[in-house]
Amino acid sequence: MGEFELIERFFTRPTPRAVLGVGDDCALLQAAPGMQLAISTDMLVAGRHFFNDVDPHTLGHKALAVNLSDLAACGARPLAFTLALALPDVDTAWLEPFAQGLLALADLHGCELIGGDTTRGPLNICITVFGEVPAGQALLRNGARAGDDIYVSGTLGVAAMALAALQGTLQLPEALLRQVRVRLEQPTPRIALGLALRGIASAAADVSDGLLGDLGHILERSGVGATLDTKTAINLLAAPAHPTSANGPNDPFASWLSESAALRCVLAGGDDYELVFTAPPAQRAAVQAASAASHTPVTRIGQIDAQKGLRLLGTDGLPLANTNTNTNTNTFTGFDHFA
Amino acid sequence: MGEFELIERFFTRPTPRAVLGVGDDCALLQAAPGMQLAISTDMLVAGRHFFNDVDPHTLGHKALAVNLSDLAACGARPLAFTLALALPDVDTAWLEPFAQGLLALADLHGCELIGGDTTRGPLNICITVFGEVPAGQALLRNGARAGDDIYVSGTLGVAAMALAALQGTLQLPEALLRQVRVRLEQPTPRIALGLALRGIASAAADVSDGLLGDLGHILERSGVGATLDTKTAINLLAAPAHPTSANGPNDPFASWLSESAALRCVLAGGDDYELVFTAPPAQRAAVQAASAASHTPVTRIGQIDAQKGLRLLGTDGLPLANTNTNTNTNTFTGFDHFA
Repeated sequence: MGEFELIERFFTRPTPRAVLGVGDDCALLQAAPGMQLAISTDMLVAGRHFFNDVDPHTLGHKALAVNLSDLAACGARPLAFTLALALPDVDTAWLEPFAQGLLALADLHGCELIGGDTTRGPLNICITVFGEVPAGQALLRNGARAGDDIYVSGTLGVAAMALAALQGTLQLPEALLRQVRVRLEQPTPRIALGLALRGIASAAADVSDGLLGDLGHILERSGVGATLDTKTAINLLAAPAHPTSANGPNDPFASWLSESAALRCVLAGGDDYELVFTAPPAQRAAVQAASAASHTPVTRIGQIDAQKGLRLLGTDGLPLANTNTNTNTNTFTGFDHFA
Repeated sequence: MGEFELIERFFTRPTPRAVLGVGDDCALLQAAPGMQLAISTDMLVAGRHFFNDVDPHTLGHKALAVNLSDLAACGARPLAFTLALALPDVDTAWLEPFAQGLLALADLHGCELIGGDTTRGPLNICITVFGEVPAGQALLRNGARAGDDIYVSGTLGVAAMALAALQGTLQLPEALLRQVRVRLEQPTPRIALGLALRGIASAAADVSDGLLGDLGHILERSGVGATLDTKTAINLLAAPAHPTSANGPNDPFASWLSESAALRCVLAGGDDYELVFTAPPAQRAAVQAASAASHTPVTRIGQIDAQKGLRLLGTDGLPLANTNTNTNTNTFTGFDHFA
């Protein structure tokens, strides 16, 4: 199968919202009046971002999910995406489920595949995603102010726990592994929450490289510091709660790990694709309303400080050793794709 | 050097036109009222699209040039681009010239680097480019009509000739090789010509995979056929003419090749990144004016037919054997990145 037949068979779809989709030199997109286009690109490399033998259906889902997560962090509504794909060979038994996983998530969010490129090469998936957001309403990283609350959506550290289990450094019962690896392999982009937080959150980012790293980007660009309550944060290492549950996350997984290992998963584990965001205390009711409206649990885990640096309060409420300085790089660090 | 320091050092630049550039979850772009966004993505893989030891400065140029060429083919004005980069290691001696080559071409076209992603992995460069075009004025592949003239810009086949020389299947004097490899390694995206052809050309595509393949896309999407005059086309295998020369291409290179090899370079050679376009005969003066205004030579090489299929007239004016059928796949084929 050649390049054009492959595109025709797996990746050519109707694009009712885009002016022009796959098949010309360019795709054409027209934003509604007053709308800005939010754009993000992510490249996933075999052996780095996913195991070579990962189920292609979940890989298709994840490749788009990590991009949609960036739109969520900006409060943008998904519109369209392009897909560039390097494949070692044309294997329809792989391409078919990959395309299905990818396009099922795309359809769920009304995100149209409008263009792309395919070539032979070491497996590499590069997606660029486009969303729209009313001018001036995008959630950015630079708006956190001293006194703001810090929130995280959903669960944290579960993907890191799954990764440890798949790498053999953590033993988990098979049923539990099945439950946690869904969070690693099929993350849920928090699009509905991002949209609901427009006008409420003062800053937001998605947690792709670990909470401390991604919160760190907010602190840096906002010129502020923060204090995190790890006693609350450690409870984020839990099975995703049922959206309509009043109790928030349940089924704590932390019992499978030592407290320090659990904390490392929560604070430094990557691949969760939750949102970390800030909002003034006056917005607490509005944040809860946004959480309920988007069926996405959120947990308040700390506060923005005028004093720069990130301070962690231990589960005993006292500052964690070696962490009440300006950096936490020695204790908990975010994921670096070059490290 | 980590991911963020790398981005900060080489790829973070002011973005006066974009609402928001590198550094947040998304970039933000706002098109002017009445404008559509033209979007194209291309992935370049080491060993497939370029030699592993290629000069990184020229590689940076080419990676953006092939994307800008898609904007040119649509008559879109470059606005911005994102860069996703997988690198085997962080080698500043490579990154520095790569970034310089990339950003020099970007600056030339006022095309802002607004976002991206970097990761460790087999060398892979994926650029997504954004241009603007007034709604309804994009040059598309589907507008060719029977009776239209067919034109090609600049030269054709020179990149294929350079590739053959670099692969050792063609012997060229060193001075000549230097001259031709510029066309392979540093193609000139025909942005100015694309803009000048708005409202004049009936269809357009860029010649990335070979003339027959890319013209074939126009024919297919327009539901028409064509007759090409290879006697004229073979003269496109020439050194790029000085833009202000009245004579068009000069210094024919064809003498270094047999006639059939020369014809293969012109008809099936990839990597030229010229424009192939059609226009009604009534627009001949307008096409010449667009050529002059954009300082880009154009050559009329054939005509669109109502009868489907592609017919080649030999240098003797007679139909070439085996080519007056519906496909030319056995004689001259376009470049397929999976072949």
